[in-house]
Amino acid sequence: MSKDRLIFVANDDGYMSKGFRAAVNLAREFGEVIAIAPERVQSGMSQAITINSPLFLRLTEESEGLKIYALSGTPVDCSKIAFDHLFKERKVDLVISGINHGSNAAINVMYSGTMGAAIEGSFYGVPAIGLSLDDHDADADFEGAVKYGREIIASILGAAEHLPRPLCLNVNFPRCAADEIQGVRLARQTRGFWKEEFYERTDPHGRNYFWLTGAFQNAEPMAEDSDEWALKHRYVSVVPVQTDMTDYGMLRSLDGVL
Amino acid sequence: MSKDRLIFVANDDGYMSKGFRAAVNLAREFGEVIAIAPERVQSGMSQAITINSPLFLRLTEESEGLKIYALSGTPVDCSKIAFDHLFKERKVDLVISGINHGSNAAINVMYSGTMGAAIEGSFYGVPAIGLSLDDHDADADFEGAVKYGREIIASILGAAEHLPRPLCLNVNFPRCAADEIQGVRLARQTRGFWKEEFYERTDPHGRNYFWLTGAFQNAEPMAEDSDEWALKHRYVSVVPVQTDMTDYGMLRSLDGVL
Repeated sequence: MSKDRLIFVANDDGYMSKGFRAAVNLAREFGEVIAIAPERVQSGMSQAITINSPLFLRLTEESEGLKIYALSGTPVDCSKIAFDHLFKERKVDLVISGINHGSNAAINVMYSGTMGAAIEGSFYGVPAIGLSLDDHDADADFEGAVKYGREIIASILGAAEHLPRPLCLNVNFPRCAADEIQGVRLARQTRGFWKEEFYERTDPHGRNYFWLTGAFQNAEPMAEDSDEWALKHRYVSVVPVQTDMTDYGMLRSLDGVL
Repeated sequence: MSKDRLIFVANDDGYMSKGFRAAVNLAREFGEVIAIAPERVQSGMSQAITINSPLFLRLTEESEGLKIYALSGTPVDCSKIAFDHLFKERKVDLVISGINHGSNAAINVMYSGTMGAAIEGSFYGVPAIGLSLDDHDADADFEGAVKYGREIIASILGAAEHLPRPLCLNVNFPRCAADEIQGVRLARQTRGFWKEEFYERTDPHGRNYFWLTGAFQNAEPMAEDSDEWALKHRYVSVVPVQTDMTDYGMLRSLDGVL
């Protein structure tokens, strides 16, 4: 463990999740770790921030080179309070968010609290890596994710000073045994969206309610340069993420219309 | 009012907000309106979805050509339940989300529930327009927003069949009198991010808590093609929005690193 590095770990499944523990343990191989995870599950919280209620920050664990906090807010709140409150006086070397229980490939990057925290961290000029495993099981097997996550973290730390900022990676691991993983592939975000199916029920008071469930709709043929292709073929997919959402093509189409 | 068109209106400030009423009334000029807004304020909810709790949908108002529902979820949930439950059998002509109390220019597009609902609507192939006024006041003056919003909606409906999909616009109105607005400008998203300042307090039980507040940090000089420039100069800014977050430049930088 290098005493010189400070690694910030965030998460969206909560401070008790197995994936968060895996990320904290992995991060400790690379330096001192300060981790903040939500008190409760915050899956699907995207880039959400807490504007209208106060945030409680609670130290849950402390040992040499490690502090873990639980925060009563969203994953993005975790990154914000880390950088704008806890780390005001300290230089952070890396942000790791995850390891998420469930894939954040394709359009999931937009809904993901794990990626929300990573993106927010990258705004502070620190390389940020979101790690997600394509398995929602609370007891998922993170062995392959840890093995390849370690390689990716080492490569990014090694090259960080030569890479532009902001630098944010959306890393997704296939659901398979560690020795079945085919390697690491740089990829682009697959086009598609989630079409929902709402399950309708009636509560004991006679009110109808709905559960949101859905299925990913791929909006393009499987292409070899996409993250969904990589996962399907048991590669670790790495998509660098940026936050300029301007549709430059549409700007040209709208010329003369508006 | 054209009986032939169906307009879906969503929102993030809740079904009681003044801006939501302004959007509903504006939409009614263009067709039948079905509106769904959150039961409570959902500012800053981004693309968040409700995975772990049920959703209650409540009809709050019905008159000729108008139905208004309140939903116990996020702005994105509003769009999802509209398209995947209410509108299964019907063609929607336009999504209007807003009118938001507060600007969604620059990086705000990422945190905005108003834009979350608009983006989600655009995934269904329907032109979607998020409308936001650069004024957080609950009793803000929406006269200019309605006037120019009307023009933009009419132009988009007129050109819709010739424009590509998905089509999503982030429209922001300056805070000034309607007759002081200089016109409409197509623009790109300004680069920048929010740096927070956390106010720390102590509750009656001795626990520390924090309020998140922040200030937008512009990461570039004011450029004439940006949305912040347009708003500052009292133009209505229109930024088309897309959701491929791949950083293609970084893909090239990472070649050989990963």
